[in-house]
Amino acid sequence: MVDRIAKDARAASRVVAKAPARVRERAIRAASSRVREDAARILAANRADVDAGRTAGLAPALLDRLALDDARLAGLAGALEAVAALPDPVGAIDRMWRRPNGLLVGKMRLPLGVIAIVYEARPNVTTDAFGLCLRAGNAVILRGGSEAIRTNRALGDAIAAGLAAADLPAAAAQVVPVTDRAAVERLLLHEEEIDLVIPRGGEGLIRFVVDKSRIPVIKHYKGVCHVYVDAGADEEMALAICENAKVSRPGVCNACETILVHEAVAASFVPRLCARLGALGVEIRGDARTRALGGDAVVPATDLDWAAEYLALIVAVRVVPSLGDAVAHIERWGSQHTEAIVTRDYFAQRRFVDEVGSSTVVVNASTRFADGGELGLGAEIGISTSKLHAYGPMGAEELTTTKFVVFGDGQIRT
Amino acid sequence: MVDRIAKDARAASRVVAKAPARVRERAIRAASSRVREDAARILAANRADVDAGRTAGLAPALLDRLALDDARLAGLAGALEAVAALPDPVGAIDRMWRRPNGLLVGKMRLPLGVIAIVYEARPNVTTDAFGLCLRAGNAVILRGGSEAIRTNRALGDAIAAGLAAADLPAAAAQVVPVTDRAAVERLLLHEEEIDLVIPRGGEGLIRFVVDKSRIPVIKHYKGVCHVYVDAGADEEMALAICENAKVSRPGVCNACETILVHEAVAASFVPRLCARLGALGVEIRGDARTRALGGDAVVPATDLDWAAEYLALIVAVRVVPSLGDAVAHIERWGSQHTEAIVTRDYFAQRRFVDEVGSSTVVVNASTRFADGGELGLGAEIGISTSKLHAYGPMGAEELTTTKFVVFGDGQIRT
Repeated sequence: MVDRIAKDARAASRVVAKAPARVRERAIRAASSRVREDAARILAANRADVDAGRTAGLAPALLDRLALDDARLAGLAGALEAVAALPDPVGAIDRMWRRPNGLLVGKMRLPLGVIAIVYEARPNVTTDAFGLCLRAGNAVILRGGSEAIRTNRALGDAIAAGLAAADLPAAAAQVVPVTDRAAVERLLLHEEEIDLVIPRGGEGLIRFVVDKSRIPVIKHYKGVCHVYVDAGADEEMALAICENAKVSRPGVCNACETILVHEAVAASFVPRLCARLGALGVEIRGDARTRALGGDAVVPATDLDWAAEYLALIVAVRVVPSLGDAVAHIERWGSQHTEAIVTRDYFAQRRFVDEVGSSTVVVNASTRFADGGELGLGAEIGISTSKLHAYGPMGAEELTTTKFVVFGDGQIRT
Repeated sequence: MVDRIAKDARAASRVVAKAPARVRERAIRAASSRVREDAARILAANRADVDAGRTAGLAPALLDRLALDDARLAGLAGALEAVAALPDPVGAIDRMWRRPNGLLVGKMRLPLGVIAIVYEARPNVTTDAFGLCLRAGNAVILRGGSEAIRTNRALGDAIAAGLAAADLPAAAAQVVPVTDRAAVERLLLHEEEIDLVIPRGGEGLIRFVVDKSRIPVIKHYKGVCHVYVDAGADEEMALAICENAKVSRPGVCNACETILVHEAVAASFVPRLCARLGALGVEIRGDARTRALGGDAVVPATDLDWAAEYLALIVAVRVVPSLGDAVAHIERWGSQHTEAIVTRDYFAQRRFVDEVGSSTVVVNASTRFADGGELGLGAEIGISTSKLHAYGPMGAEELTTTKFVVFGDGQIRT
């Protein structure tokens, strides 16, 4: 069955790649309308998934990600409309240049082809990925988790209706109806039919996909994000950014996991930081200097803490002698996701931006802005922390590639 | 030994990535000077390689690619100077945009890290790849073939002298001194230390690298390039382009292997094409209609011919009923390398450019322009016919990636 899905997707991708922007937009908008019209049916399917999950003893956090209600379903339909309103990347040429022999040369965007998304509980990935892949002219294979299979199939019906309304082939977006890992393994062998795999979910799922795939994979394993508070930083700003980066949504990958404090501000800043975060219920794990300054509530940090993605109300804090040491700490322990500096110093921010090689580098703002929507990409299919093809949040443009186009009037090569 | 090379390259890549453009340029220029100064020693090493190759019964074409003389060595040194003069891609931000909350967002270029080049006889790859990788701020591991090992080691000495002159670590560009395939296999396991592998050479070498590598590979297997002569094309222009694309250098990947002729011009054009190419010693393999028009010398073509990369004075010719059939033929038999249309018709070229998904699409010019230097990239590290990361000729910019940089004044996410 998976073999057929892959072959059908490849055939459909040729049709989708040639479809005008307005046809692809029509399919996305029609799918959005159908999600709204089918709300009762989709929510019933979702309730069945949630009930089955509860019976099976799924963790509460997972059940929360899985559950839809009227508001979440409306958000999901609205996100599709937003993607339909995005500028179409296909066929664009950013600039052209003329060669001495008169040839006019440019790079034109074209779709990648077939993209497979392998993900876990969150049903919004089904519609978000469909919208973004189609916006960029790709066919998509949607393989969600078993815990969401009823919801995903109901959403798949709405997607199929959207494609039909625009006369696009049904195989342009297929929900894989089987959820066992063997089916995923088999899917990942189809290097001839699938151009890119994007796994989204826990580190275990992602490692499984990377190990088994013959197809290129774009992924991030985890987000160990840092906030570095520089000497002379505006302490109020630093406190607000540290709080926002840690507390506003601790379970997501762009949340801060380690705060590095320059020793010149440590005596003043560390006690305030510990008091502020402590009052919000954050457990602080500090090096010796942080413990000396931060009070009894600070737990000793070990090397495990510098590497940890807590995804919880825990933060590691370390006092560093210099900006260079902060950069070295990030290089040693970071995950190439997102790092922020809080500083007043022009030269410090320049050095931080140049030397930190992570996929998003932020000056005087929260790490939580590392998100396709927040950065202005319109929407996000995921975040890459490996450098090939895309690095950082990925929008529709990152689901395309470019070909050279060359316009001549008879030139031959001498 | 290969393990040490990979680890040293990773460490050196951190130094190179932070080195200013002028330091990397100094190293490239100093290596070029050293190649000129060491000419006698390099040519002696090359003679030893060529003698050993002749004794071992290497094919004449391979011996030709391997052999250096004064002119070729000067060309190789000149190419390094040209790369040193290219604009530096590292640290550039093409455009920035402002978010409603005041954040200023852009994408800044940064090096990929460590690049391994696995190649065969041609010694110019050693210096070309060194220059382009360093231009883009990367460390490089150069693993050439056994037949060129003495030459490559001598060139490696010049490269080492160039790096030393700029105080860059020797491990920023290492010539692998062992040439057995087991060493390559071992190298290809170092996914933590190496970011990208580019194989250059015959299809056998490339398939070997793709099969064994855990590291992302950018490559092209072959170039089955097409020239399509449209209805109403300027026949003189079409003849000149077909001749140039086929005959000017038949052994390279951007040479034309199949000519497709619209039936509306076939009666006039096919006889002229066969006469013109025949007189230049080109063997023509045609479909039934080409044979009927082209004379007795035309050999019957089979499906094998449509798929063939001859790399020789042979060309396949087919008469097609329409532009759509030409596009379908290219999609079915092509290798996503380079295709050209010869036409006077505005709408025909628009459709060809939009619908042909190959990495280079040319209007009214020779396929031979599919080359980094000819397209204005300054130099070329290779050509990609797979869509991820880079598609088509790759210059220095394709050896970089981009990170998001975000400038705020205290923004937090609400």
